[in-house]
Amino acid sequence: MLEHAFRMRSTIRRKPQRGSYDRAVIHRVLDEGLVAHVGFAVDGMPFVIPMVYARLGDELILHGAVASRMLKEGSTGVDMCATVTIIDGLVLARSWMHHSMNYRSVVVFGRSREITDREEKLAALTAVIDHATPGRSRESRWPDDKELAATRVISLSIDEASAKQRKGGPLPDEGEDAALPHWAGELPLAIRPGAPIADPTCDGVQLPASLTRDRW
Amino acid sequence: MLEHAFRMRSTIRRKPQRGSYDRAVIHRVLDEGLVAHVGFAVDGMPFVIPMVYARLGDELILHGAVASRMLKEGSTGVDMCATVTIIDGLVLARSWMHHSMNYRSVVVFGRSREITDREEKLAALTAVIDHATPGRSRESRWPDDKELAATRVISLSIDEASAKQRKGGPLPDEGEDAALPHWAGELPLAIRPGAPIADPTCDGVQLPASLTRDRW
Repeated sequence: MLEHAFRMRSTIRRKPQRGSYDRAVIHRVLDEGLVAHVGFAVDGMPFVIPMVYARLGDELILHGAVASRMLKEGSTGVDMCATVTIIDGLVLARSWMHHSMNYRSVVVFGRSREITDREEKLAALTAVIDHATPGRSRESRWPDDKELAATRVISLSIDEASAKQRKGGPLPDEGEDAALPHWAGELPLAIRPGAPIADPTCDGVQLPASLTRDRW
Repeated sequence: MLEHAFRMRSTIRRKPQRGSYDRAVIHRVLDEGLVAHVGFAVDGMPFVIPMVYARLGDELILHGAVASRMLKEGSTGVDMCATVTIIDGLVLARSWMHHSMNYRSVVVFGRSREITDREEKLAALTAVIDHATPGRSRESRWPDDKELAATRVISLSIDEASAKQRKGGPLPDEGEDAALPHWAGELPLAIRPGAPIADPTCDGVQLPASLTRDRW
């Protein structure tokens, strides 16, 4: 299941009816997701690393410590594949074969580019801070020069990307399966927030707006 | 953030204090996760595909249609990297630099092996069906020979794997940061189920035990 591009990269081969190259659909999934699984190959060996990310226009922004080998590699311009998946539910059917998962996912292929220009770097990091908590960049202290220098930022263009999704209940059971006594249907799933836990040093500090918007 | 093995593959280089090679820790994360992001390289080009999976003993089980190019590739024994990430929360700090995410993740490196023996294949598919919904394999119809033949199952050994996690609130703010008026703390996040949606054909069929166990 859940197969995206292969060989032709962003051409969806398996279950193409579930696929889309619509930029708005791709942006929506990227804006809602929280973690990108970033793949790259070293001597033909694949690595997949979970990373915080942000979308800024048509770019996917990744960041980390300058010492990170993965980002060091990325800074030289290498082929990467970043995949974001949102799980929407489990699909239970009368037969094993029709069990499935509801999801939305985006696969981005691109050559990494390091962002070194100070203004562009700050804009990229602003997008990262605001991605999961909109407006948080204005509720906390910006990086100073030393912190900026210790942070590497790379981007992937979203030019070559595809979205894929499945939604709804199980495929209709056919023939004898339809008469089986088993329950079939869907269990919706979603990431939900618990109650915020304030740092012990935050006595009397009001909960920030970034945690009280529609996002959470 | 969230960096796993690199160069030495399962040797954790960045923030090694967050890492673990403990088999029980690795199993717990794999058993709780729902989707694996599976990476492989074709002519040096990385691909990362979200897939349903299961752990069976010390093996990670993947499956899909025989027509899937990715699984066809996998059936020939190729290097793969499968990463499972569970998001536990957002970490907000007074400075951008100390923002983070709480998570648990496992990276498995391995050479894929196709499972063709009928009994072994059925056991692997049982694990897949029961992974997200324990006991579901006994609440639904097993695959017949035709369905089995249309399904390819591959496994990766969990021999070379590492777990990584971050938990708790933000790092303590130092110096002038400690006096900043911003809120700092943690927003716990977890995947939660909504109300099950029965298929229209399931009038009067009782909700299955697999949806009423501790898992959901």
